[in-house]
Amino acid sequence: MTYCLGILLKEGLVMASDSRSNAGVDDITTVRKMAIFEKPGDRVIVVCSAGNLATTQAVVTMLRQDLNNGEPNRDLFAVKTMFHAAQAVGDKLRETLARESEFVRPYGDPGGSFLVGGQIAGEFQRVFQIYPAGNFVEASPRSQILQIGEAKYGKPVLDRALNNDVSLDEAAKLALLSYDATIRSNLSVEGPIDLLRYARDSLSVSNLQKFSRDDPYWTDLRGKYGEGLLSLVRGLPTPPRHAEKGGATPIRGAG
Amino acid sequence: MTYCLGILLKEGLVMASDSRSNAGVDDITTVRKMAIFEKPGDRVIVVCSAGNLATTQAVVTMLRQDLNNGEPNRDLFAVKTMFHAAQAVGDKLRETLARESEFVRPYGDPGGSFLVGGQIAGEFQRVFQIYPAGNFVEASPRSQILQIGEAKYGKPVLDRALNNDVSLDEAAKLALLSYDATIRSNLSVEGPIDLLRYARDSLSVSNLQKFSRDDPYWTDLRGKYGEGLLSLVRGLPTPPRHAEKGGATPIRGAG
Repeated sequence: MTYCLGILLKEGLVMASDSRSNAGVDDITTVRKMAIFEKPGDRVIVVCSAGNLATTQAVVTMLRQDLNNGEPNRDLFAVKTMFHAAQAVGDKLRETLARESEFVRPYGDPGGSFLVGGQIAGEFQRVFQIYPAGNFVEASPRSQILQIGEAKYGKPVLDRALNNDVSLDEAAKLALLSYDATIRSNLSVEGPIDLLRYARDSLSVSNLQKFSRDDPYWTDLRGKYGEGLLSLVRGLPTPPRHAEKGGATPIRGAG
Repeated sequence: MTYCLGILLKEGLVMASDSRSNAGVDDITTVRKMAIFEKPGDRVIVVCSAGNLATTQAVVTMLRQDLNNGEPNRDLFAVKTMFHAAQAVGDKLRETLARESEFVRPYGDPGGSFLVGGQIAGEFQRVFQIYPAGNFVEASPRSQILQIGEAKYGKPVLDRALNNDVSLDEAAKLALLSYDATIRSNLSVEGPIDLLRYARDSLSVSNLQKFSRDDPYWTDLRGKYGEGLLSLVRGLPTPPRHAEKGGATPIRGAG
């Protein structure tokens, strides 16, 4: 599995991906799932991948191969808008599946999904989620979070703490907490985490980091969060006790 | 969907179920998913259900119908151990599926799953998870939590805070926090929550409660937890900034 996260903010975007790839639990490798295409001053386009690794690697390889060929719907350095970038990723996914699906399906799901985020000069920052069908949806101030892969464990902390006014740095911290919750509960997601803080209108990559599980900051964050949460939970009142206050009525046999 | 939770503790068991049943998002009803079979002084057996409602209702109805018929593998008032109770539930699930699956499958998944927890005099408290195949696993001090249905959102808070020494009341609080996380993130789970605190060796139901979303205690708990979590998260340090500290290398075009 995989867990990739894209967060749309007023200040920019946070994009993150984990590094675990597994075919079953006994075939585990570490791969990079974030590809970044940058033309400083003009555009930054980030593509995060989940799903069948052969499929997603083929898509990213084709995106690289088409760079600088000038085709307005295929070259990420030539597309006019992030919408066109998302279409280009969806198109390459469809091409890959058209070629591979018939042969791969007997062995497993050939599908893949992507987050495509970034900014092209003249537009705001945007982030899209590309479905296995190649169609896509876009994040908005009302739905700031896009996730692919093993998304559920790490969603509650984001749902509670995120809003449009959260800063890039705060959102980066929340992203690491979201990954921590996921990694604790699920074997199929693991560090290192590639984490990009993209600052609006910077049109360049200036805060891209890799967080291993033993990174001093992340270790400290994890420890403090865990302790803080335990102490918070322990300090909350326990439920009052009542006898059968409107709950399910037991079926009683003779005692 | 559904979310049911069973927690094995030294002090006893916490069993909980939500009340949402839906066929799609436009056909939503409230149902009770917890059935309790009690013979005071001899046994308490709790059955929580998830999955196809027709299937799970049929199983519970058959369990009721077989009460007091004295059959040692079918009558929950006659089974000798909780293991046999789990087998009885699995058997009735298999019987139901043998009768229904062929006809139901064209319309959707006929499957169901169950948590079966409780205590029979002479044994410790036990809790089992019955799979759609009718086989089952049992909780243990190393794996105290069993969940069926929409389990992922509510797992991180349990993974962090539960251990064998947690009291019944603390675990009941954690269960409500786990439901709260799930309900916030997922439409398919909703209150009221049926929550049983079963005290070891009580062999009776004395702390069964129904928590609606507007229950004063749960509202207070939710508010304090949400505020406490926000304040905890905001107080944690944000990630340091570095330029490309070992992260994914961007592919650069001419600026």
